[in-house]
Amino acid sequence: MKARVIVTLKNGVLDPQGQAIEGSLEGLGFAGVQSVRQGKVFDVELSGADSVTAKAELERMCEKLLANTVIENYAVEIID
Amino acid sequence: MKARVIVTLKNGVLDPQGQAIEGSLEGLGFAGVQSVRQGKVFDVELSGADSVTAKAELERMCEKLLANTVIENYAVEIID
Repeated sequence: MKARVIVTLKNGVLDPQGQAIEGSLEGLGFAGVQSVRQGKVFDVELSGADSVTAKAELERMCEKLLANTVIENYAVEIID
Repeated sequence: MKARVIVTLKNGVLDPQGQAIEGSLEGLGFAGVQSVRQGKVFDVELSGADSVTAKAELERMCEKLLANTVIENYAVEIID
């Protein structure tokens, strides 16, 4: 089973990396960029065929390792 | 207009960071993790209301800055 986990910074948490990218895009001539926030994506392959169990397992992985839940949100999506 | 850009490593490109995460998950007792690949996500806010233009602009940003197209794929998704 394949799944995608997306981890993004919570609103209000400073994102200097995103700001640097925003500045670089402007420097390259891209007008109209209002904000850039960078996050992480994890493509995880799991054994087992039950998507409900897999989703619960992935959420536990986020809580324990993949995301820092103080400053980050996560979203788990089962792909197939 | 809000958009999400997802940049992932191409198949066959080594991902030591993903492998380290996979090892850590196993160490934490998560059985059944077959592979982990890490990528990046960029949440971009653009001025302008035309989604076709925005998508083309974001693809140019990927080609120029956001992705290393030698080793990475990108996907652009307009959110609203």
